[in-house]
Amino acid sequence: MIDLKTLPERLLLGPGPSNAHPRVLEAMSQPLLGHLDPQFISLLDEVKESLRHVFGTQNAFTLPLSATGSSGMEACLVNLLEPGDTVLVGVNGVFGGRMCEVASRAGANVERVEAEWGRPLDIDAMIEAIGRVRPAVVSFVHAETSTGVLQSVPEIAAAAREAGSLVVLDCVTSLGGIPVELDAWGVDAAYSGTQKCLSCPPSLSPVSFSERALDRVRARTRPVQSWYLDVSLLAGYYEGEKRVYHHTAPISSVYALHAGLSLVEEEGMAAREARHREAAAALIEGVEPLGFKPLVDEAHRLPMLTSLLLPDNVLARDEAALRGRLLNEHGIEVGAGLGALAGKIWRVGLMGENARVENVERLIAALREELAA
Amino acid sequence: MIDLKTLPERLLLGPGPSNAHPRVLEAMSQPLLGHLDPQFISLLDEVKESLRHVFGTQNAFTLPLSATGSSGMEACLVNLLEPGDTVLVGVNGVFGGRMCEVASRAGANVERVEAEWGRPLDIDAMIEAIGRVRPAVVSFVHAETSTGVLQSVPEIAAAAREAGSLVVLDCVTSLGGIPVELDAWGVDAAYSGTQKCLSCPPSLSPVSFSERALDRVRARTRPVQSWYLDVSLLAGYYEGEKRVYHHTAPISSVYALHAGLSLVEEEGMAAREARHREAAAALIEGVEPLGFKPLVDEAHRLPMLTSLLLPDNVLARDEAALRGRLLNEHGIEVGAGLGALAGKIWRVGLMGENARVENVERLIAALREELAA
Repeated sequence: MIDLKTLPERLLLGPGPSNAHPRVLEAMSQPLLGHLDPQFISLLDEVKESLRHVFGTQNAFTLPLSATGSSGMEACLVNLLEPGDTVLVGVNGVFGGRMCEVASRAGANVERVEAEWGRPLDIDAMIEAIGRVRPAVVSFVHAETSTGVLQSVPEIAAAAREAGSLVVLDCVTSLGGIPVELDAWGVDAAYSGTQKCLSCPPSLSPVSFSERALDRVRARTRPVQSWYLDVSLLAGYYEGEKRVYHHTAPISSVYALHAGLSLVEEEGMAAREARHREAAAALIEGVEPLGFKPLVDEAHRLPMLTSLLLPDNVLARDEAALRGRLLNEHGIEVGAGLGALAGKIWRVGLMGENARVENVERLIAALREELAA
Repeated sequence: MIDLKTLPERLLLGPGPSNAHPRVLEAMSQPLLGHLDPQFISLLDEVKESLRHVFGTQNAFTLPLSATGSSGMEACLVNLLEPGDTVLVGVNGVFGGRMCEVASRAGANVERVEAEWGRPLDIDAMIEAIGRVRPAVVSFVHAETSTGVLQSVPEIAAAAREAGSLVVLDCVTSLGGIPVELDAWGVDAAYSGTQKCLSCPPSLSPVSFSERALDRVRARTRPVQSWYLDVSLLAGYYEGEKRVYHHTAPISSVYALHAGLSLVEEEGMAAREARHREAAAALIEGVEPLGFKPLVDEAHRLPMLTSLLLPDNVLARDEAALRGRLLNEHGIEVGAGLGALAGKIWRVGLMGENARVENVERLIAALREELAA
């Protein structure tokens, strides 16, 4: 079998995972505690509290689900929707599309508001649809990882609240890189992943549910279709004085998240956001002379994930082969386009610990070398 | 926040997690690769092949799900059952009961065959019920973690096949400790966890589906209710030449499992089983003079998890407080009883790397000291 110590070092500048911070890697090598050990429960309580900070919420139900980010999407939708409920989904990329698929498997009627990939959702179109449809749930993406678009949240969330709809928000790529303010924005359920701006390996999905969302779960007429993701059952283990076994929490992944969140707290979100913005600006400045252009206009561009339209001299070659050379000759991973953008864009992630100008410079130097060849 | 380096060292002799092997802990501290990196895909392919060995199967669809063991149960049941299907579940402990709950949330009609906790399922009763009910799926537990009972599989599986039923088997606690032979037994879908006899942290659920099981999935009239656990979608990432993004695989957890499985291969299953049996025998011999008696008769006793009926001098005290003293004064975790066995038994796990006579001796010495006090 492969010797793990011979694996190559990679600079992960794709859409995630990003590189884990050395303190995170070290955390995962700590010996295990039991999942009901009081010392582990204390650690988990600190993780929950730190997650409240980065999510900008007082929500008691804020915890890391024991599966990757997409499980958080499923958890939010299957807990809040019952068969026959209507959900309004904003779709301007892969992850809005995935929300429709997940909600439909929960038996919901799915109404879509589409926007062009690379553009944000039209706020007026969302507000109009909310008023017309009056859905049980309004669901959309804060930071679309497939396109690099940032979505403004408060206006849509306010309209949803006025219509009595719950608001679900995908924060997979934004959390820990730019401010997320669930309470100020009026978001009822949100989810993220650990492998983007939190600089941890993929494995957990931080989620947060408001009391309004939990009330909806309590008022359900039938059980949540997923036993594993049922928030009422999860609360028995993650909350209260006496913790009840539900599933075995992933101890080492929680250590990793604890370390990742402590790095966020030490740096402070303002400095962290500034660092992400500085790295993204350096990227765009550095690649424009090489002919790459950002897909997304400046006002709606994510700092941690930049979609770059490929120049003609890259399109004339094989873009996948060029990505392969960046990986194999330079140890740098960048991401491919998805869907209609496949072959047309690259997605460059500068996430968490990787959001540093020195990493941008390394990428630019490698690109210069390859494009001169 | 808590300094992770100050966490106490524990000898984990409960029902799981067990201690991870140092090589597993080291594996998790290796830098990340991307989830579509060819090097990572090669590693994943080795993990799949090793899992086939420990599962005793040629099943192409054999892989680690990106969530803990209970997600494996959910994956098997929600992929193979459609609303209105009947599932026959053998229930002689917590995990058979959980199967009923999960299947019922998939809209299945659940027929139960019960046996006393601490006893195996009655094979004749299972065969009779299979012939009478002719269920779509027959589901039961190989190694009941709540009681320490080993179930004989082939007779029930043969009857199920004869009736045209698929067989689902819970191998959470058995895999990597005693032989599991899915193909020889005629099991169609099985799941396990990484935190028991594979000596890894909790975080993944190894699963295996036979072609017969996959045919059933392909013939479904409606989509699998869980997008995250849909085996058809998972196959797109885990199988074939071109790997398609589904969710982001948990890189470090796969490293850990790779290391855990390489330890199993190096030792060989025969030696590993013998080590588990030797440790269990030493445990029972060591605790009997202290008044503890095994709950399960010898013929149906698991080697990796022993349920011990508590002696009067422990029952006269507070058994939970005594477990607390073992943990806090001696650094040893043992498990409590669940359900009707709460307060009556302890569950002592000697799993994976922990299945060693020296660990038994450490537990006995601590118990002697506490019971003399």
